Amino acid sequence: MEIERKFLVDLPKWEKLDKPNPIRIVQGYLSTNPEQTIRVRVWANKAFMTIKGKVQGISREEIEFEIPTGKANELLTKFCKAVIEKNRYLIVHDSKTWEVDVFEGENTGLVLAEIELGSEDEKFTVPHWITIEVTDDYRYYNSYLSENPYSSWKK
Amino acid sequence: MEIERKFLVDLPKWEKLDKPNPIRIVQGYLSTNPEQTIRVRVWANKAFMTIKGKVQGISREEIEFEIPTGKANELLTKFCKAVIEKNRYLIVHDSKTWEVDVFEGENTGLVLAEIELGSEDEKFTVPHWITIEVTDDYRYYNSYLSENPYSSWKK
Repeated sequence: MEIERKFLVDLPKWEKLDKPNPIRIVQGYLSTNPEQTIRVRVWANKAFMTIKGKVQGISREEIEFEIPTGKANELLTKFCKAVIEKNRYLIVHDSKTWEVDVFEGENTGLVLAEIELGSEDEKFTVPHWITIEVTDDYRYYNSYLSENPYSSWKK
Repeated sequence: MEIERKFLVDLPKWEKLDKPNPIRIVQGYLSTNPEQTIRVRVWANKAFMTIKGKVQGISREEIEFEIPTGKANELLTKFCKAVIEKNRYLIVHDSKTWEVDVFEGENTGLVLAEIELGSEDEKFTVPHWITIEVTDDYRYYNSYLSENPYSSWKK
C-alpha cells in the first residue's frame, strides 16, 4: 500500500530554487480505469509497469515491476493512446523527499509535487514553494492528464 | 505478429494418445477487452505478461515479456477476476508442434488444440484427433473463458 499526497507548486518560487538534475520520464497507460490503472513508464534508461487499484481514502493498492525497455517503448507506441513526458526533480526538505514533476508537451505549465508517507496521519513540513493540496482531485492523476492534457483544460 | 489456428479435440481419441508430460499453466486477465487483452500467465515456475491487440483476419499484434513470478501471483490474486488453470501438452505432428490445452476447474471437459503458422496461407496436416476449427469463435478465447467458463455454457 502506498500513501501519497499531491500539491500544486508556486511557479515563480520554483524557478528561483536551486535544483538537482532531473530524471526524464515518459509514460503511458494501458488502462486509465480508476479501479485498475496500468502504467508503462520509461525512467531514464529503465522501464517499469505499475498496476494500481482503487483509491481508498489516501491509500491505494500498487504492484510494480521492471520490464524490458524495448518492450516498454513498443507498448507506448502501439498500445498507449497518449503519452506523458516530464522531468522529475527529487527535492529533500526536512528529511523527506519531494518528487516534483515538471510536465512537457501538451501538459506544459503544470508542476506537481508529491510526498510519500508511511501512514495516513504522518506529520511533515511543507516547503515554501508548495501551494494547495490536490491529492483528491482526479484531474491531476497522470492517467487523467494523459487523456485530458493540462493545455485543454478550461481555465 | 502471430498467426494461430485453433481446433476442438476428439476426447476419446485424445485419451488413447501417448503423451509427454504437460506444462502447468495458471493465467488471468487484467483486461479482456478484445481490442487489447492483457494476460498474466504463470508457466511452470516462470511468469509472463502478454498484451494482444485487435484480431485482424487470423493475425494479431502481440507483445510478451517475462515478469517476476511473485508479482504475477500477486496480480492473479489481487487484480484478476477469474483465473484459468490448464495442462498444456506439446504434440509434434508432421514436424509442426500442436499445443493442446486440457482445462481444469470450471472449464473441465474442454480440450483445445492450437497451431502457430508462419503465414496466413501456410499448409499443414491435421492429426486424426482434431475435429472442427474454432479460430474465429470468440467463446474459445481464454479471455472469454475466464469470465464465462465452459461449465456455464448452455449445451
